Amino acid sequence: MENLSTLMGKYGEEGDRLIFKILNNGLDHPEKREKVTAAFEKVLEGKNTPDITERALRYDLTIPFARYVVMHQNELAFPFKRYQMQPVWRADRPQRGRYREFWQCDCDVVGATSLISEAELLCIYQTAFNQLSIPGITVRINSRKLLAGIAALAGMEDNLTEMTIALDKLDKIGWEGVVKELERRGLPQEGVAIIEKIIAISGTNEEKLEALAAIMKENTIGSEGVRELHQTLEYHSKLSPSGSATVAIDVTLARGLNYYTGIIMEVITDAVKMGSIGGGGRYDDLTGLFGMKGLSGVGISFGIDRIYDVMEELQLFPEQLTTGSKALLLNYGGENETYALAILKQLREAGIAAEIYPDAAKVDKQMKYANKRNFPYVILPGDEERKQKMVSLKNFVTGEQQMISIEEVISILKS
Amino acid sequence: MENLSTLMGKYGEEGDRLIFKILNNGLDHPEKREKVTAAFEKVLEGKNTPDITERALRYDLTIPFARYVVMHQNELAFPFKRYQMQPVWRADRPQRGRYREFWQCDCDVVGATSLISEAELLCIYQTAFNQLSIPGITVRINSRKLLAGIAALAGMEDNLTEMTIALDKLDKIGWEGVVKELERRGLPQEGVAIIEKIIAISGTNEEKLEALAAIMKENTIGSEGVRELHQTLEYHSKLSPSGSATVAIDVTLARGLNYYTGIIMEVITDAVKMGSIGGGGRYDDLTGLFGMKGLSGVGISFGIDRIYDVMEELQLFPEQLTTGSKALLLNYGGENETYALAILKQLREAGIAAEIYPDAAKVDKQMKYANKRNFPYVILPGDEERKQKMVSLKNFVTGEQQMISIEEVISILKS
Repeated sequence: MENLSTLMGKYGEEGDRLIFKILNNGLDHPEKREKVTAAFEKVLEGKNTPDITERALRYDLTIPFARYVVMHQNELAFPFKRYQMQPVWRADRPQRGRYREFWQCDCDVVGATSLISEAELLCIYQTAFNQLSIPGITVRINSRKLLAGIAALAGMEDNLTEMTIALDKLDKIGWEGVVKELERRGLPQEGVAIIEKIIAISGTNEEKLEALAAIMKENTIGSEGVRELHQTLEYHSKLSPSGSATVAIDVTLARGLNYYTGIIMEVITDAVKMGSIGGGGRYDDLTGLFGMKGLSGVGISFGIDRIYDVMEELQLFPEQLTTGSKALLLNYGGENETYALAILKQLREAGIAAEIYPDAAKVDKQMKYANKRNFPYVILPGDEERKQKMVSLKNFVTGEQQMISIEEVISILKS
Repeated sequence: MENLSTLMGKYGEEGDRLIFKILNNGLDHPEKREKVTAAFEKVLEGKNTPDITERALRYDLTIPFARYVVMHQNELAFPFKRYQMQPVWRADRPQRGRYREFWQCDCDVVGATSLISEAELLCIYQTAFNQLSIPGITVRINSRKLLAGIAALAGMEDNLTEMTIALDKLDKIGWEGVVKELERRGLPQEGVAIIEKIIAISGTNEEKLEALAAIMKENTIGSEGVRELHQTLEYHSKLSPSGSATVAIDVTLARGLNYYTGIIMEVITDAVKMGSIGGGGRYDDLTGLFGMKGLSGVGISFGIDRIYDVMEELQLFPEQLTTGSKALLLNYGGENETYALAILKQLREAGIAAEIYPDAAKVDKQMKYANKRNFPYVILPGDEERKQKMVSLKNFVTGEQQMISIEEVISILKS
């Protein structure tokens, strides 16, 4: 929960509309009747007032983080690094890849301008997606400054946002579609040729940067964008972990949120149609919104729910995850139950996760349960076993069963 | 977020009032004008309608869990065990130990009636609090059935809730106060003596159970409660981990929520005045609320925020927790920065958490940062070090500094 006033106006008009607002409590208090009635009138006009809603659900983690940094600026050590995993909410129509309630996982560095931070965040993306074994990962990278340079050269400096929105649709609507949209938004004829030339640039990151540097030669902001991309990739090459995730410059990458000012990035996989599964960038004055000027930051976010859906679709979750326990102790009741509890305690003291079937139900039922829960082993502490101070251990994968000492069970389950 | 209808009526009248309701979006749509206006009238009367609020924030984890179990009853393996850690919200006046937004950590077992589950949950409490090293922990345990027996013997069977509420205040208002409150709520004169006799019972758990059994001899439900307490403690003695947390029968323990039907438990510490930092119990028909009858369950909850406050007050958090990194690499810029990045990569590949100061700021400033962040080591990769392919490693605790090879640094930081 955040104060509604902290969130409103930070995510654009569409964002304001998608924020979940929380009804104040105690609206039926007789003394509030007049104020609340007036507040209802405003709601009918599409406005909010603190008389009816003062609080709202987080829309993302970045704005609440900026609020936090400003509130705690005197206690924090800058450059301040943090990660944060929390649910966020958007009053959107739920559909594939779009959720009303979902988790973001953010990493940010604030209070440092060095592009080493950008390079380290790229490494975090690579390391995480390498470890998750998601195939076909590309981390797309671009620069808002380069986009500003392109806009200037194309005669669209006053319509930067519109230009980036149109460019961002290249994949979906093709070059013809982009041109139509750009012209509708005021792109002059000579601008079309410039943009076409820029988005046609291909090759390695170095080759792209060389071509972009030549085009931006006379444009200060665009050249600065090229230099920053170059420097970020240079730092990144020093730190990059080995693995498959590619980092690639993509001049059509826009990122929706308006607070980005420098390098921007986004993660996609070509293995599943899902849109971006992560994104971020540098914001030069995010805390300025809350009265703390001149603090530069850069951050990335993982879209955990989309990543989960991608992994489900690619069947990347190991079956073993369905249980954390290595063994189920069957419960034969009476003295055998007492014997089973003693074994359970020994297993747990040896650091082995094990469970006992709580009721002395039919063996059939308990075995079915073990199967459904996917326990690798079942332990059968029956009359015979108890008398001999042994247990029967059944390997649920091979079906093999042997009567052995508890020490042997521990050694097998530990290996 | 849950559907408001899932939550309403499950936590008593007070609970209904404390649920945060979420305003529907699009209330300003012209077609909805009539409905929304009518809905506002209802809000002024203290009622809710789906025309203005359909969703709400979780009040606890138990009711949403019951909803989940019913929705997924055909996929789950019963007995179903789960833990869940999530924020919950209550529209309460915030104060010490009472938060608007806080985290609960729940463990439940549903679909088994065996008291082994109760015993295992007691062990979870003990293990967790032993590991957190919080002193003076007592897990209080009681039985709703025993409370029903006491009410019957005292002539208050129709006022069980009132009786337990009064008993629960014994600590705060003393015996005199409890008697006054009980009499006000209809306790007959002969009932006072019976209750006084019961709460005066002292000694070990075994001694208490023996005395209670004698008193409850003629009362079926009370005897059942005594038997269940006995059996739970018997199971518990077989599984209990070694450590300091005590489990003690306390007949005045009531637990606020009405859905409990069997054993109830609560955790307190006498080291800090904070109220309960955990609690739970058995509910025999929680899923019945959602149409799935006869499924018994038992669960506990940890109040993470109160536990955090207790640990803060007792200064139980280790200082080291303020950083996860073992070393900070100073940034001398230029070639030395490149050299530092190469070292950083080597350290990380060796599994050592290390950071570089992102900007080539003044050494003083970087050292102050290392101090504030509490890094155990600082690595100084300067001109001399770079030429010799060595680094200076400064132990920030002893102040000792030595110029050594990177391999030696790795071996020191790993130990």
